[in-house]
Amino acid sequence: MPTITSVNVIDIRFPTSATLDGSDAMNPDGDYSAAYVVLETDDGDLAGYGLTFTIGRGNDLCVAAARQIGARLAGRDVDELAGDLGGLYREIMADSQMRWLGPEKGVVHLSAAGVLNAAWDLAARRAGKPLWRFVADMTPEELVAACDFRYLSDVLTPAEAVGMLARLAPTREERIAELAEHGYPAYTTSPGWLGYDDGKLRRLCREAVADGWTHVKLKVGANVEDDVRRLSIAREELGDRVLMIDANQVWDVPQAIEWVNRLAPYEPLWIEEPTSPDDVLGHAAIRKAIAPVGVATGEHCHNRVMFKQLLQAGAIDFCQIDSCRLASVNEIVPVLLMAAKFGVPVCPHAGGVGLCELVQHMAVVDYVCVSGSLEGRVLEYVDHLHEHFTDPVRIERGRYLLPGKPGYSARMHSESVDAYRYPDGHQWGG
Amino acid sequence: MPTITSVNVIDIRFPTSATLDGSDAMNPDGDYSAAYVVLETDDGDLAGYGLTFTIGRGNDLCVAAARQIGARLAGRDVDELAGDLGGLYREIMADSQMRWLGPEKGVVHLSAAGVLNAAWDLAARRAGKPLWRFVADMTPEELVAACDFRYLSDVLTPAEAVGMLARLAPTREERIAELAEHGYPAYTTSPGWLGYDDGKLRRLCREAVADGWTHVKLKVGANVEDDVRRLSIAREELGDRVLMIDANQVWDVPQAIEWVNRLAPYEPLWIEEPTSPDDVLGHAAIRKAIAPVGVATGEHCHNRVMFKQLLQAGAIDFCQIDSCRLASVNEIVPVLLMAAKFGVPVCPHAGGVGLCELVQHMAVVDYVCVSGSLEGRVLEYVDHLHEHFTDPVRIERGRYLLPGKPGYSARMHSESVDAYRYPDGHQWGG
Repeated sequence: MPTITSVNVIDIRFPTSATLDGSDAMNPDGDYSAAYVVLETDDGDLAGYGLTFTIGRGNDLCVAAARQIGARLAGRDVDELAGDLGGLYREIMADSQMRWLGPEKGVVHLSAAGVLNAAWDLAARRAGKPLWRFVADMTPEELVAACDFRYLSDVLTPAEAVGMLARLAPTREERIAELAEHGYPAYTTSPGWLGYDDGKLRRLCREAVADGWTHVKLKVGANVEDDVRRLSIAREELGDRVLMIDANQVWDVPQAIEWVNRLAPYEPLWIEEPTSPDDVLGHAAIRKAIAPVGVATGEHCHNRVMFKQLLQAGAIDFCQIDSCRLASVNEIVPVLLMAAKFGVPVCPHAGGVGLCELVQHMAVVDYVCVSGSLEGRVLEYVDHLHEHFTDPVRIERGRYLLPGKPGYSARMHSESVDAYRYPDGHQWGG
Repeated sequence: MPTITSVNVIDIRFPTSATLDGSDAMNPDGDYSAAYVVLETDDGDLAGYGLTFTIGRGNDLCVAAARQIGARLAGRDVDELAGDLGGLYREIMADSQMRWLGPEKGVVHLSAAGVLNAAWDLAARRAGKPLWRFVADMTPEELVAACDFRYLSDVLTPAEAVGMLARLAPTREERIAELAEHGYPAYTTSPGWLGYDDGKLRRLCREAVADGWTHVKLKVGANVEDDVRRLSIAREELGDRVLMIDANQVWDVPQAIEWVNRLAPYEPLWIEEPTSPDDVLGHAAIRKAIAPVGVATGEHCHNRVMFKQLLQAGAIDFCQIDSCRLASVNEIVPVLLMAAKFGVPVCPHAGGVGLCELVQHMAVVDYVCVSGSLEGRVLEYVDHLHEHFTDPVRIERGRYLLPGKPGYSARMHSESVDAYRYPDGHQWGG
């Protein structure tokens, strides 16, 4: 019966701003960072690894919050914890003093995600299973008991969720076998960062096609003439492959409509984050005005209540959950269920550091347990920073391969932790 | 030409949980706290004082964030800063790495409010004016230039805002004279904390009536039978005075409707925070189902984009802005303008520590500059912790008296700061 002996939270930052990797219209100079959570146990081989993702300054705030939230895990029995991850979630959310700082948003919620990601990782490792398999081996009742349905009952009740999961449970193994053979469909954002010049954009689009990518995403929103030129380059290189665009929240509603309609001739599948992530009604208005271009959002959608409304309002064509913005599996699965109920495909947000590693598991859970469909689904891929993980994502011909090792894939190499620890790692001059 | 020499942010906590003052259905044991911001200058008599409010644990996170956000103010010329408070706001919001942690919500936004509140206080003190007067002496153009209209243009443009302000500008002094004579209408929440027993509730309601209060608010939401009994006690004591109720977010939408309809016979004016503060569409559904009981919310409404939607969706009858949840005057005034446009009265949230001191200025600005109306307006009052402020609110016969001293009224006595500084103040055993 292993016990958690300590909760370590480490400030890890990568100086990505130097290369403009990850640059977009709202975030010109992010340093991809993680509040990295390690749950150590008295079983030398067993630990839990999780993270929340930020882009630099303020990562220390998430580290401090995760330390406070995580402190309650020290001394806990691993098997008890793993057997009641819903209880752990509810315990964390019930801290009313911390809740005041959100509620369920911002630094506290991001940090809760980091801690809970580590707890789910620990539970999956203890079971010797990849996270997706750990979830897929739960009964519908067990999975629903781990989920947060608070504030959702006008759209989805726990009983209804059990029914949805139960209908697909008998055929879970068929879909797992299919993913094991063919992988999960993906798209790449790597060619399209806003800081890249036209030559680099063209070269990277060409390489993406050669590598078998069928879907490519470009950043837009800084200058409309530049966007027209960049989209025409991308469209030339991509032919009839699928192109998506992403504005990272820079527009007001009327401006979004005007700008996207200028870019519509290049037939983007979706515009991502056209405006404030809080603006449910704004997204609905934009969607109406730019069809057939779709609307996608979610990487900054801060909790299940906001996703509920995006779905209720008919505001989105694609639901982009994020494994660090939402508070781990406990909050993501209810969003997957609501999206399935509304018939909206889930296309998780990835990139940053570790997000691809994490969300691949959630995409698999969506297909295997919740929606049973791959229609309209593509999982984001960005080719940064995977070398720092012990179980990095594997991509072949534009598809994610099914993860096979135990856990949630968020463990970093100790050499990387030592090098990029902020501010004392040697990559930071420490 | 004074210069800001240092930015001090202090963790202040009051052990209010010991007396159940402030207890409600969501927050049973808050320790009212403040990340207290002091902008010191090289003019010995001049400093700026601001705060953001929390309820205990996590106040240190706001302190840390406010230090990071405030650091940019050190070395600034006070007159330049005071002349471009919109520029300061935009500079703070443009920090994309910090923005990632929200955006515009949670710890980072609360902390930005604390820093900006101190900057507005400094500007008003430099001018020798109460904050409300400092704002009322700005031209419509100057005030609009200080405001954040990003993401609002589908509802309100800066040009339209100038027009709204200009229409009322010629009569500002008349309304100021009226407030100077009669004060601003208020209500009290002091009798109705959930932790108080029936006897104390009855006694405090009776005292409120004797003190001239015409509006009293009760906490509800823990147990419906208890609520029925407590409301019947309050109604007996209040006669035909106005009663409001506040559930502090504990219900799902269907539950809110059922519960409020049970309490409707006691004719509450409004139900406050019936569900998640993020649930715009939920509030709209509740409002439809419980009329003529009104819906009020806002103390946890995290930014202007959320208020925009509450108004667009017809989700609220009363708009409860908070001086620490929104990012200071720069973000509050646009909300006042939108509420005026939609004809929804603004009834600011107060209580906690220092909130009454701050929001009284915003209520005055609403009447004098923005809405020109007192109809349906009542400003919350709670009788806690005013003794710690150098310019506390003054109440007479259920009305706020017009503040007269320079600044935003958030300065604390140095003895209070020394005593309640966490964890080393002597009230904390330090």
